[in-house]
Amino acid sequence: MAAASRLEHDFLGERTIPEDAYYGIQTLRAIENFRITGIPLKTEPLFVQALAYVKKAAALANQELGVLDASIAAAIAQACDRVITGEFDNQFLTDMIQGGAGTSVNMNANEVIANVALEIMGHPKGQYEFCHPNNHVNCSQSTNDAYPTAFRVALSNKLVGYGQALSELAEAFAQKGEEFRNVLKMGRTQLQDAVPMSMGDEFKAFATNLREELLRIEDSRQLISEINMGATAIGTGVNAPSGYAELVTQHLRTITGLDLKLAGDLIEATYDTGAYVQLSGVLKRTAVKLSKICNDLRLLSSGPRTGLFEINLPPLQPGSSIMPGKVNPVVPEVVNQTAFYVIGADLTVTMAAEAGQLQLNVMEPVISFALFTSISYLTNACHTLREKCVVGITANAQRAEELVRNSIGIVTQLNPVLGYETAAEIAKEALRTGKSVYAIAVTERQLLTQEKWEEIFTFENMIRPGFIQ
Amino acid sequence: MAAASRLEHDFLGERTIPEDAYYGIQTLRAIENFRITGIPLKTEPLFVQALAYVKKAAALANQELGVLDASIAAAIAQACDRVITGEFDNQFLTDMIQGGAGTSVNMNANEVIANVALEIMGHPKGQYEFCHPNNHVNCSQSTNDAYPTAFRVALSNKLVGYGQALSELAEAFAQKGEEFRNVLKMGRTQLQDAVPMSMGDEFKAFATNLREELLRIEDSRQLISEINMGATAIGTGVNAPSGYAELVTQHLRTITGLDLKLAGDLIEATYDTGAYVQLSGVLKRTAVKLSKICNDLRLLSSGPRTGLFEINLPPLQPGSSIMPGKVNPVVPEVVNQTAFYVIGADLTVTMAAEAGQLQLNVMEPVISFALFTSISYLTNACHTLREKCVVGITANAQRAEELVRNSIGIVTQLNPVLGYETAAEIAKEALRTGKSVYAIAVTERQLLTQEKWEEIFTFENMIRPGFIQ
Amino acid sequence: MAAASRLEHDFLGERTIPEDAYYGIQTLRAIENFRITGIPLKTEPLFVQALAYVKKAAALANQELGVLDASIAAAIAQACDRVITGEFDNQFLTDMIQGGAGTSVNMNANEVIANVALEIMGHPKGQYEFCHPNNHVNCSQSTNDAYPTAFRVALSNKLVGYGQALSELAEAFAQKGEEFRNVLKMGRTQLQDAVPMSMGDEFKAFATNLREELLRIEDSRQLISEINMGATAIGTGVNAPSGYAELVTQHLRTITGLDLKLAGDLIEATYDTGAYVQLSGVLKRTAVKLSKICNDLRLLSSGPRTGLFEINLPPLQPGSSIMPGKVNPVVPEVVNQTAFYVIGADLTVTMAAEAGQLQLNVMEPVISFALFTSISYLTNACHTLREKCVVGITANAQRAEELVRNSIGIVTQLNPVLGYETAAEIAKEALRTGKSVYAIAVTERQLLTQEKWEEIFTFENMIRPGFIQ
Amino acid sequence: MAAASRLEHDFLGERTIPEDAYYGIQTLRAIENFRITGIPLKTEPLFVQALAYVKKAAALANQELGVLDASIAAAIAQACDRVITGEFDNQFLTDMIQGGAGTSVNMNANEVIANVALEIMGHPKGQYEFCHPNNHVNCSQSTNDAYPTAFRVALSNKLVGYGQALSELAEAFAQKGEEFRNVLKMGRTQLQDAVPMSMGDEFKAFATNLREELLRIEDSRQLISEINMGATAIGTGVNAPSGYAELVTQHLRTITGLDLKLAGDLIEATYDTGAYVQLSGVLKRTAVKLSKICNDLRLLSSGPRTGLFEINLPPLQPGSSIMPGKVNPVVPEVVNQTAFYVIGADLTVTMAAEAGQLQLNVMEPVISFALFTSISYLTNACHTLREKCVVGITANAQRAEELVRNSIGIVTQLNPVLGYETAAEIAKEALRTGKSVYAIAVTERQLLTQEKWEEIFTFENMIRPGFIQ
Repeated sequence: MAAASRLEHDFLGERTIPEDAYYGIQTLRAIENFRITGIPLKTEPLFVQALAYVKKAAALANQELGVLDASIAAAIAQACDRVITGEFDNQFLTDMIQGGAGTSVNMNANEVIANVALEIMGHPKGQYEFCHPNNHVNCSQSTNDAYPTAFRVALSNKLVGYGQALSELAEAFAQKGEEFRNVLKMGRTQLQDAVPMSMGDEFKAFATNLREELLRIEDSRQLISEINMGATAIGTGVNAPSGYAELVTQHLRTITGLDLKLAGDLIEATYDTGAYVQLSGVLKRTAVKLSKICNDLRLLSSGPRTGLFEINLPPLQPGSSIMPGKVNPVVPEVVNQTAFYVIGADLTVTMAAEAGQLQLNVMEPVISFALFTSISYLTNACHTLREKCVVGITANAQRAEELVRNSIGIVTQLNPVLGYETAAEIAKEALRTGKSVYAIAVTERQLLTQEKWEEIFTFENMIRPGFIQ
Repeated sequence: MAAASRLEHDFLGERTIPEDAYYGIQTLRAIENFRITGIPLKTEPLFVQALAYVKKAAALANQELGVLDASIAAAIAQACDRVITGEFDNQFLTDMIQGGAGTSVNMNANEVIANVALEIMGHPKGQYEFCHPNNHVNCSQSTNDAYPTAFRVALSNKLVGYGQALSELAEAFAQKGEEFRNVLKMGRTQLQDAVPMSMGDEFKAFATNLREELLRIEDSRQLISEINMGATAIGTGVNAPSGYAELVTQHLRTITGLDLKLAGDLIEATYDTGAYVQLSGVLKRTAVKLSKICNDLRLLSSGPRTGLFEINLPPLQPGSSIMPGKVNPVVPEVVNQTAFYVIGADLTVTMAAEAGQLQLNVMEPVISFALFTSISYLTNACHTLREKCVVGITANAQRAEELVRNSIGIVTQLNPVLGYETAAEIAKEALRTGKSVYAIAVTERQLLTQEKWEEIFTFENMIRPGFIQ
Repeated sequence: MAAASRLEHDFLGERTIPEDAYYGIQTLRAIENFRITGIPLKTEPLFVQALAYVKKAAALANQELGVLDASIAAAIAQACDRVITGEFDNQFLTDMIQGGAGTSVNMNANEVIANVALEIMGHPKGQYEFCHPNNHVNCSQSTNDAYPTAFRVALSNKLVGYGQALSELAEAFAQKGEEFRNVLKMGRTQLQDAVPMSMGDEFKAFATNLREELLRIEDSRQLISEINMGATAIGTGVNAPSGYAELVTQHLRTITGLDLKLAGDLIEATYDTGAYVQLSGVLKRTAVKLSKICNDLRLLSSGPRTGLFEINLPPLQPGSSIMPGKVNPVVPEVVNQTAFYVIGADLTVTMAAEAGQLQLNVMEPVISFALFTSISYLTNACHTLREKCVVGITANAQRAEELVRNSIGIVTQLNPVLGYETAAEIAKEALRTGKSVYAIAVTERQLLTQEKWEEIFTFENMIRPGFIQ
Repeated sequence: MAAASRLEHDFLGERTIPEDAYYGIQTLRAIENFRITGIPLKTEPLFVQALAYVKKAAALANQELGVLDASIAAAIAQACDRVITGEFDNQFLTDMIQGGAGTSVNMNANEVIANVALEIMGHPKGQYEFCHPNNHVNCSQSTNDAYPTAFRVALSNKLVGYGQALSELAEAFAQKGEEFRNVLKMGRTQLQDAVPMSMGDEFKAFATNLREELLRIEDSRQLISEINMGATAIGTGVNAPSGYAELVTQHLRTITGLDLKLAGDLIEATYDTGAYVQLSGVLKRTAVKLSKICNDLRLLSSGPRTGLFEINLPPLQPGSSIMPGKVNPVVPEVVNQTAFYVIGADLTVTMAAEAGQLQLNVMEPVISFALFTSISYLTNACHTLREKCVVGITANAQRAEELVRNSIGIVTQLNPVLGYETAAEIAKEALRTGKSVYAIAVTERQLLTQEKWEEIFTFENMIRPGFIQ
């Protein structure tokens, strides 16, 4: 017995669709045509949701402007509401990378929503004369405005979760900054001993470093909030009724709760991918920072006997299949790797953006794939770094202070008293002989008194230096 | 009722493992610690298989050298054979990107194989005193030799399928080259009309261009065939018995059928990622070429009325949700995007390779993720481009020839007769007036006779020019 | 006879310096140690100038705070004023890429200014007891605050000229937009004929596209206006007198006229390179846009007989050594290449930023090299593109309109009247038969009247479509 | 009084050329049209030389085939010989980045050689009827074969010097490997203490790592030795006499001494940039390795009191303007930065290669700029690293050995005796208590005898471990 199915057609011919499928012939073609990543659209539910937001806003605007029958509009809107909840996520099967500038994604949404609407209206799936994917669901739209608008809505929403994860990570560093504020340690520049500092300030700086990213994320959300609904195929608004662009934007603003704006130059907005490049650059910048911070965590926890060993990362798993007792900084390592992925994905976005031609950039699907995965991975990396690493970091305060006391770098604090050249001579001799700065400066050369030494090298003055001449 | 489970421990403590799980405590920790991509190891079955190849080769070598009991070795080898078939793929759950330089992947394999071997030996899972993940399955190995060796075996095997797909694509272009050999068309440089050529030669050149990549793939397979089995943790071979490195390499060669070689400098081989960088560069180069070719296909098929329109790509799906009848070059477009992904992934590999430190490069997991996905996507792209596009391309021969006849570029063929400067004057006048080169050169200026003109501009001499003075 | 020279020493030993050199021993060492690019610091006079701004501000602040003798401070300030004018540019000989995190650049400035100050004070060069490069010129400073501050001041000033060039380029596109506003042409998506549009709108969109970059440049200038003067070696402010950071920032603000701000977290600000990554991303984004625009200009001017040929670029030089009369789009081509350089340089910046460690990023010199060259090249590219290309572009209006009239794409405008499916049938038949849309829709099938056709396809309704049902 | 000058014309009009200029009107236009980098062609004298090699080979072949008068050919050949010596380098003023796919470079060469030939023949400069840049010097050539051929010859020659520098650097590392062979040190993986090793082996591995690059450079030289002389504008050989391609290749082989080969598919060879992408990838790979090595040198020399401090780099210059006595690893740092430049330049090459269209890749000039600078900078970096750093490295052998003796990592060598789990317990206790492995294993727990301990932990067995059960 054959499985139930229905026939659908488009201008290239007819195809058989499984009866339980809400998608239609164009989605079927897309599934067959694009088998690259094996990762379907449904893995980004926020994108599916955003497509339904857009379709609903369009239906409402179309009805108000008299180009869509009220009953059809109502059914479409209701169908969209169900798609928004995730009920039909499994019908979004187009590969994340496709040709056609998003047409397959747009048609996948149009077809699913049309068929859900048909059922709502009491018609069987596929009876498109009552609610047609193109004529009704896609009414007054083109892929070239509906797709990027949905993409931007999805990005904006996805950035909220990412910003939250990043903010919590920054907070965790800030708390360690507070916890370690009275741990004295050696600052290092160029991996060479420099001058003393507070370990708390080192961790607080990580927090500062990441908090700045939150502002950049907001900048990006501003840029991607500019949409081009209503200017249809190439930005001239062909086939959209007068007043539609403003109206659909207003509806979409209400539906999504996002501060969306209609672009000023809709020809430009149709092909421009500048906002994606900017956002990708922001993600890359954060990746660069996270990688630097994780490099530092790995340096500071190196050892336990032959490294810096100023801090301990929480042990998560045995670190070696052969070396007993070895524990590795596995979380910073995985964050480094995530960063490298994101930096690579930024190049993908860059090349895709550069490949736009004339009135459209056809490479948006790979931009969406790159941005969605980068944001997901970074979000995961932030959670992992915080939960599995940062909150459990402990300081080896005694060792860190001993390293300072034994260092040559403290000689810098003698500059205002002895001058750079004399201090340099002391440093040079300390390095050559292995003696301490104190032994040379106070005991041997008597360049300053014991009292002066103690005034300069109080714990407080080392960790938060004042100016003592 | 509680699900059946067993307790396992490592030096960080105890954990409960589901009784039906073949993996053990370290895999469980890895699953919990690394939640970045959500893409588990099992999505690369060739990698799982290669891990089992390595473990089997090690067991055989260990037994021959007397450091592994024969019955345990036999059980391990048998367990490996079953893993090789894919029977236990679903036990390989570690995220494709992890910290720990592959330790989790190696331990995932060690644990699964140990438990399968235990069952083969008649013991329940988890009774590691009879077959231990570290002491027996990982015997004479470190992650730092077993993991990269398995990775290289998997890459080498994966490249076979990729090479095949690329070769078939080149062949498809070559066949079009033959089919179009007598289609006369205008050659273009800098998008400006240049001189006539055969469309067949244009397509044959695509074939040549891609065939060169097959040689580069073979170069890469040579480089990655150099392995470091036996030098364990850092390349000094600590804990491996004398003669083991050579013997395990020999076994692995036999088991895999690959021409594997033991590296000459095992300290260097332990950390070196040069072969991955080279392979990634080869993939990138092919991506660059595929992108250029797809750009050309899109240019040549542009139109139908306002573009070059020299060829037709097979229509695969309606090209627009709003523009009726529009058919787009969706397959070249998806290949372009795949290329941008691969170029981005090459940067990921580059950064990961640069981040190696001292005796190890801990970033190999993201290198493996980048290379495996790039090879998969490129393989898929080659199949798609061939099947869905190239084999169905047709030439608009009449239009292509008309463009040539009407062109100014044919004036170049008059250089040997008239000299560059006179020819340039004709070209300039043709451009200014819209007249044909023939009209100016023969009719008006009588710079050459009708006979000479016909001698020069035979179809044969335009498509495959000889030298006529 | 030996050339006049003087002896100088540092803690590594003594060296002979040419008597006429204002630089000293540390600059000499730097010149010898760093021979990579052969491009000396003096090729960025804005950077030399900015170093002098910083040194002057420091001298004034130091004097006010009583740590620098008034007469020395005055001499230093006067010396700085002369360096600011460019008088001593030729003394800045350190290679643009150096090790040492800018120490050589800072010492080059310290030495030159010290020696100029010495001469002002009536001492011979090298008599550093009267004005010492470290103790006096560098007083209360470290390379790690003075160098990045000067770098940021120089960047900010350099961006002014770049923004001006970009703005003028956008303006030139806008003027063409006005000039071509009544040129009807075919819009193209995916290189396939789409729907009609105004060529003026196409050029206006280029202007819009680039004007958005001006806002991003201003964002970048904001970020780089945050400086870390006063926190010296690692951000703890060791060796700087109380109140110095705020005071020197205020002086520098006055001297430069820039809205500089003292960073809130000076530990973080000492190593953070986020502002450079952001700026580099902005330059990259503009490069991506310029490249896309130049690709479009090359496509639109392709031909003259076998391409789109909708516009003419001004001919600048013979386009071929062999093909007479060939004229190539050489300016867009050189701008494309500039864009590729800038995109590559952005990767250099990214990697350098990622390589920061602990309290410093030692890779700032290559960041400065990459950013300075990118800004210079982009500035030059904008001037070149405007002067040599955009202002001279002319439209082939008649041809562009003929292409539209002859197109199938106009069928889209029949959707609201005939529906998507009927319109698609017409399009398909037009493509198959070569007939016009008019012939099929009006003459043969009589789907709409002559009057309706004319209402829809007025020139005005094609170029700026309204909604006609 | 006006400076002497001459009038020249091309098909765009007339221009005045300074009388002493050997270049002509097209070079003048190029100088004016392309003001991007300010870096003229003459900065790559090997490229100028290679252009003259190509022109000489063409003249000889043309004469033999009867398409160039013997006296003109002789004058051209003689002129080329003089250009080859560098006598006219200062006439090559075209900017390194230009539009036109190298036409300006080719014409610069054609014009200079024509004018030198004219003088040799006794004619004043500019009397091109006796020796014309296009008709005679460029006879049977197009920019599209002459330019890439010259570029490849120049690259091949430039790689010789680079390979030499790299080889010498590897040799310097190998010598340190020999010198340090009996220095015992801790191997580290993931920056965590691993197992002992010889410092000599660590340095020998650097040598191995870099020597592999020499093979890759030779691979690249093979690929770039494939040339396309004779197939002129687009690879069809239009305007070249029969037999010319083979003959000119043979002459060029003789003149240059390089093993040049004529490409098999000349259509493909005209546009293919694959060999440049491959070469750029090789340069990038070496950059990645150099950067990793320099990172290691900086890690190993970190300190002096709070870092690893296993080695000393030769002090080259005071390391800080504020921290007395600080000496930084300035040479590894500048090499890191050079590597980042090269990696960025590889991206430039990648994008330029991807931008090829149809029968030509017009972006070759920026490819040449990127490759020439990368090779120059890498060559300089190799020399600098060897001379200023590697040859002067010394080992802190005593400290290195103490770190080993005090480490927990030596516990790995107890695995074969005690098993992984017992060894792990010892390690864990050592870490927790601060005790030594010896104290726990031998003294407290008596898990092995003093004799066994001594057998395992001989100096020889630590540095080059055998297998002891």
